[in-house]
Amino acid sequence: VDARPIPAIRWEGGPEGRLLLLDQTKLPSKLEVLEIRDVESLARAIRELAVRGAPAIGVAAAYGGVLALRESPPSPRERLEEALDLLAASRPTAVNLFHALSRLRRRAAALPGEDPATLAAALLDEARTLHREDEDLCASLGRHGATLLEDGMTVLTHCNTGRLATAGVGTALACILTAHREGKRLLVYADETRPLLQGARLTLFELAEAGIEARLLVDGAGPGLLLAGEIQAVFVGADRIAANGDTANKVGTLPLALAASRAGVPFYVVAPSTTLDPSLPDGRSIPIEERDGDEVTSLLGDRVPPGTRARNPAFDVTPADLITALVTEHGICRSPDRDGIKALLDSGR
Amino acid sequence: VDARPIPAIRWEGGPEGRLLLLDQTKLPSKLEVLEIRDVESLARAIRELAVRGAPAIGVAAAYGGVLALRESPPSPRERLEEALDLLAASRPTAVNLFHALSRLRRRAAALPGEDPATLAAALLDEARTLHREDEDLCASLGRHGATLLEDGMTVLTHCNTGRLATAGVGTALACILTAHREGKRLLVYADETRPLLQGARLTLFELAEAGIEARLLVDGAGPGLLLAGEIQAVFVGADRIAANGDTANKVGTLPLALAASRAGVPFYVVAPSTTLDPSLPDGRSIPIEERDGDEVTSLLGDRVPPGTRARNPAFDVTPADLITALVTEHGICRSPDRDGIKALLDSGR
Repeated sequence: VDARPIPAIRWEGGPEGRLLLLDQTKLPSKLEVLEIRDVESLARAIRELAVRGAPAIGVAAAYGGVLALRESPPSPRERLEEALDLLAASRPTAVNLFHALSRLRRRAAALPGEDPATLAAALLDEARTLHREDEDLCASLGRHGATLLEDGMTVLTHCNTGRLATAGVGTALACILTAHREGKRLLVYADETRPLLQGARLTLFELAEAGIEARLLVDGAGPGLLLAGEIQAVFVGADRIAANGDTANKVGTLPLALAASRAGVPFYVVAPSTTLDPSLPDGRSIPIEERDGDEVTSLLGDRVPPGTRARNPAFDVTPADLITALVTEHGICRSPDRDGIKALLDSGR
Repeated sequence: VDARPIPAIRWEGGPEGRLLLLDQTKLPSKLEVLEIRDVESLARAIRELAVRGAPAIGVAAAYGGVLALRESPPSPRERLEEALDLLAASRPTAVNLFHALSRLRRRAAALPGEDPATLAAALLDEARTLHREDEDLCASLGRHGATLLEDGMTVLTHCNTGRLATAGVGTALACILTAHREGKRLLVYADETRPLLQGARLTLFELAEAGIEARLLVDGAGPGLLLAGEIQAVFVGADRIAANGDTANKVGTLPLALAASRAGVPFYVVAPSTTLDPSLPDGRSIPIEERDGDEVTSLLGDRVPPGTRARNPAFDVTPADLITALVTEHGICRSPDRDGIKALLDSGR
C-alpha cells in the first residue's frame, strides 16, 4: 500500500508519455485518475473541472504542447498553435493558463526548424520547469503566509486552494498547512463553495489528510461569524489580480472580504505573482466566466421547480481596498494597490 | 380540480377541529398536508420547519392553545402553560412566536373560571384573530413595499418571505408579488439559501405560481452581481429587529446588505411591526439559533469526507446602518435607527 497522496497533476514518461490528472469532480468519494493522451481531452478536463485551481490549470495546460506534437503532425507549428488556442478557450478567468501558454509559445519560437521530436522535447522540458516552479512558488507562499497565523487562531477559507489546486502545497491553504506543520493549532472554517462544492469536497479532504480541525460552513454563514468576532483571519486564493489590486476569485469571495473589512479582521489573498495581470487596469476589465446554470440546479434535483433557470457566474471581484495584504512568493505586500502591485512586478523582474 | 393554492396554515372546524399545515420540507416536489391534532406535533412541525417563516411560526403557534385544551385536561390552565412553554422552546430567534404566545396568555388570563371549553373557544378566537391580522399586515406590507419597485427592475431576495412564510401574501416577497400584480415587469434573483434551500424550493415555487421571471443564484453570487451593477434593489424579511434597528434574518442576509451598501443599491427589510423587539438594545443580544450540522451535510452525501462536522447558525444580524429602509404596515421608515424604531413603536400604540 502506497500511503502517499495521489498528486493532482503528474507526467509519466518522456515526450511519448501521458498526463495523469486526479479527477477532482469525483473527490472525495472516488480516487480516479484520468489518463490524458491528447489536447482535446486536456481541454475537456480543464473545462469540466477535473483539474481546477488557477495554478493547476496553468501547469496542466503546459503539458498541452507536448501532447499536440505526438504522432508527428505534418505541420507541427500550425498544430501547436491550434492546440494552444483550444486550451486558451477552455476557461477565461484564471490568468495562469495564459501565462503557461505564452511560455510554450516563446519556447517554441526560440527553437529553429520543424522537427516535431525536437519541439516536443523542448515543450515537455518547459512544462516540467513550470511544474517545478509552481511547486517552489507554493512552498514560498506557504512559508510567508504561515507567519500571519498564530497558535489558537480560527481562520476561514473559501473554495479549494491546496495541493489539488496547484502543482505544489497550495496557495491560501498552503499557509494553513504550513502553520499547522510548524505546530500552530488552528480551527479552520471551510465554506462549502456552491455550486461545485470545492470547499466541502476538496478542502475538507485536504484538511483531513493533514489532520487539521475543520468545520464546514454554508457560504452564507461566514460573514455573520466574522461580525460576531469568531474568526481571526480569512485566507483566499486568486484567479486574476488587476493592476490596481482588484482580485477575481471563486464566487463567494467578495462577501467574505466585505464582512472581514467591516469586522476589522484581516483578509489575505495568497497567490503567486503570475496571477498578476498588469494589462488590466482594474477589476471591471477582468473577464468573469459565466457557467451553465445546470451546475447550480443539478445538485438540487426535485428541490427546485421544473424548468428552473439559474445564473451562474463562477467568480467575483474583490476591490483592492478590502484586501489587507497580498501574499506572493516575494513576501507579504501590505498595500496591494496600484503602487504595491507595480513594486511587486518590478521585484519579480 | 381546485386550482387555488393550498394555504400554508389552515384551521378546520371549531375548538375540536384540526390544524392543517402544508409540509414545507417536502416542497416543491410534493404537496403534502400535515394534520396537527396536539401540541407536541405542532412543536415538532415548527422545530423541523414543516412550517417556517417568522410570521407563519407565530400564527401556527397561536393555534397551540386550543390544541392544548382538547380532551378536557383536569388542570386546564396548567396544561396551557406547559403547552405554551413547549412551543416557546421550539425555535429561539423569530420574536413573532413569543408575541403570539403572549397574546394567548393574556387572553386566557382575562377569562375567569376553569372551564376548558370556554378557554378553548376563546383561544381559538384569539388564534383566528391573529391569523386574520397577519393576512392584513401582509397585504399592507406588500402595498407599501411595491411603491419601492419600478417597472423593469432586477431585484434580489433571500430565503422565502412569501405566502408560505406568513398567513398572508408575505413580507419581502409580498412587495414583489404586489408590484407584479400592478403590472410592473420584474426580474427576480432568488438566493438558493443553504442549507435548507428555502429560496430554491419555496421562493422559486411561489414566483412560478405568480408567473414572475426568476433566476436561481448560489448564495455566494449576489454580492458580485450587486457590485457589478446588475441589481437595483434587495428585499429581505426579518426574524427579529432590536431597538436600534439591527436585524436578525436568515443566514446569508448580512453579506447582501454589506454588498448593497458598498454598491449604493437600496437594501429593504420588510416585516410587520410585531417583529420589533424593543427589549433588546442591539443585535448582539438577539439569540441566534444554532441548528444541527447534519442539516448542512445531509444534502451533500458522499461529497463530503466521512465524519465531516458543520457549524450551522440559522440566522445572521445585519447592522441597522446597512438598511436603507424598513417597510412595516405603518409605511416606509427611511431611518430605521433607534429613533426611527421608537417612532414606529409609538405609531403602533
